[in-house]
Amino acid sequence: MAPSPMIKTEVAFKANGKQAARQRFEGVFDVLRDEIVADFTSKGMPQDAINWYKRNLEYNLPGGKLNRGLSVVDTVAILKGRALTDDEYFKAALLGWCVELLQSFFLVSDDMMDQSVTRRGQPCWFRVEGVNLLAINDSFMLESAIYFLLKKHFRQESYYVDLLDLFHDITYLTEMGQLLDLITAPEDAVDLSKFSLERHRLIVVYKTAYYSFYLPVALAMHMSGIPASQGSFAPYKAALDILIPLGEYFQIQDDFLDFAGTPEQIGKVGTDILDNKCSWCVNTALAIATPEQRKILDENYGRKDAEKEKRVKEVYEDMKIRERYGVYEEGAYKKIMGLIEAVPETPTADGSPVLKRDVFKVFLDKIYKRTK
Amino acid sequence: MAPSPMIKTEVAFKANGKQAARQRFEGVFDVLRDEIVADFTSKGMPQDAINWYKRNLEYNLPGGKLNRGLSVVDTVAILKGRALTDDEYFKAALLGWCVELLQSFFLVSDDMMDQSVTRRGQPCWFRVEGVNLLAINDSFMLESAIYFLLKKHFRQESYYVDLLDLFHDITYLTEMGQLLDLITAPEDAVDLSKFSLERHRLIVVYKTAYYSFYLPVALAMHMSGIPASQGSFAPYKAALDILIPLGEYFQIQDDFLDFAGTPEQIGKVGTDILDNKCSWCVNTALAIATPEQRKILDENYGRKDAEKEKRVKEVYEDMKIRERYGVYEEGAYKKIMGLIEAVPETPTADGSPVLKRDVFKVFLDKIYKRTK
Ligand SMILES: [Mg+2]
Ligand SMILES: [Mg+2]
Ligand SMILES: [Mg+2]
Ligand SMILES: [Mg+2]
Ligand SMILES: [Mg+2]
Ligand SMILES: [Mg+2]
Repeated sequence: MAPSPMIKTEVAFKANGKQAARQRFEGVFDVLRDEIVADFTSKGMPQDAINWYKRNLEYNLPGGKLNRGLSVVDTVAILKGRALTDDEYFKAALLGWCVELLQSFFLVSDDMMDQSVTRRGQPCWFRVEGVNLLAINDSFMLESAIYFLLKKHFRQESYYVDLLDLFHDITYLTEMGQLLDLITAPEDAVDLSKFSLERHRLIVVYKTAYYSFYLPVALAMHMSGIPASQGSFAPYKAALDILIPLGEYFQIQDDFLDFAGTPEQIGKVGTDILDNKCSWCVNTALAIATPEQRKILDENYGRKDAEKEKRVKEVYEDMKIRERYGVYEEGAYKKIMGLIEAVPETPTADGSPVLKRDVFKVFLDKIYKRTK
Repeated sequence: MAPSPMIKTEVAFKANGKQAARQRFEGVFDVLRDEIVADFTSKGMPQDAINWYKRNLEYNLPGGKLNRGLSVVDTVAILKGRALTDDEYFKAALLGWCVELLQSFFLVSDDMMDQSVTRRGQPCWFRVEGVNLLAINDSFMLESAIYFLLKKHFRQESYYVDLLDLFHDITYLTEMGQLLDLITAPEDAVDLSKFSLERHRLIVVYKTAYYSFYLPVALAMHMSGIPASQGSFAPYKAALDILIPLGEYFQIQDDFLDFAGTPEQIGKVGTDILDNKCSWCVNTALAIATPEQRKILDENYGRKDAEKEKRVKEVYEDMKIRERYGVYEEGAYKKIMGLIEAVPETPTADGSPVLKRDVFKVFLDKIYKRTK
């Protein structure tokens, strides 16, 4: 059945709103890039260095989905419960771009460590003519730009030091997750005995959940003036306790769609099996495999061979991974919804801003039963 | 003439004192490494990851000359004008180890970017069996350990945020210098038209002077309670204005000794000419070369060829680079001494600690007419 004209209009309206939000956010990037480059220039840097740094920023910053950055802006708006002033918008978007800078720092270097070929539809930065290992230092400069921007725009705020601590903590936790991932699933040495659902959980939480889910929300909370504690309620702890399982659910879904999503759905062809990825699918399979199935997995997982990939997929289907994922997803949704409902939203005695359930519901709704 | 027994004893006493200072400082490393690893372990990290991180710290942290780290301790002692209490010593040494962590972050990654072979008499970390590109993330973790230690031990201090800003600023400036160096003097593409004494100065100041000279002293000044301004006197600005030229002098000396020092003096065989380094020697030569000499330099510099290296050295000798260095060194010494003498050392109205000339004299004395 074709959608009714009414629904069509709503969908278009929503899509337009999303595109407009993205465009406004991208406009802030231009301002920030110019500030970063102006500061660099003011230090007497020569033109070849200026060009290089500018190209680094422009190649590696925009172009992604920008979900993490945009979620800072969205969260501040929800917490304030009203449209943001221009100044508030700019500061929230700046924090969003700091999350994007952090992600670029991780992705530029991760692509080198994984020897990846493309990222966001273009060659990985280190593969660009003339870049090569300089990409290591370029990734460092993306990280440092975070602290340049924070100092320039937040140095006078009472929560400045909290922003710094937060970025440090999350950066470190993500690097721990990256280490775990690298020693667990090197692309060139398959050893499934290193895999387990518990190892998978650790990697996902540390490598992805902290910076993708907790960081944007915690930044927005600081900017909105939510204090460390409100009576017996600890808002940042509560946010963490919801967002880490949410990030875990998101990554498990990502792992599942890499196997089960069609290219039309996920916008790429999944390669986790070929790439020896420590995915939820293989870890679930390992947990329940018969000796025969285990042998097939050991012999076929993580090889650059389409036939072997097919053998692994057959084992997944035999094990009903699709059904198992459905069961997991329902359970995760219910559990996270329960955690969200437990956020008190009680007005505070001192009138300080309050954490809102909608912050988390917006995330959960975007993810639940997502097929792309 | 053999040294008198008296002098012999003094030298031995000084050497013993230096060795004892180093040993005490190294003892603090053991404590800090255990704290870092305990925190990592407390996050539920598995044993293989714990072993990896511990090995990263132990391979890359001690083993160097530790001059930068030790200079934090020495500077705090000079500023306080008395022996440090155990607690003061520990905190000063901790800041010193943070400088060493920063340096390790830079060196581990620099060795990858330069594809170097050895560092401090052992294979570069990325060349160790099984490490390879993981060294990128390992270098990140060395940087993050700085902020872990600062938060753990300085979060309650009024100058905590100053320490963070300082590390961010200096890290960023050093990365700028590294970028300049990498695009000016790539090892595989000799182009002397990119070189100049001005470019050399920029690289040296940004890549080396800020983190090696200003950072340790500024850290010690913060820990000693020296405020941002004392009347019309700006102590950090004064320190910077002395330590940047001092760092420049140090690096020019290092460049000169790479050419003129004997292996016995410098503990290695100089390779700057072979490695296409943007050294003070070649930049000085380029500034005064006749067309014939320029041709020799263009054709022989930066090639992995001992005969060509010899041709370059002959040009240097013809140009009397040794004499020119002597003139430079006398001028640099006088200029820096003049800057040091201009430090007021005036007691402050509010009794806040005062910057002392001895902080800088100690540095200058260690460097002046150094032959190793
Ligand atoms: Mg990757
Ligand atoms: Mg990776
Ligand atoms: Mg995936
Ligand atoms: Mg090097
Ligand atoms: Mg280098
Ligand atoms: Mg040298």
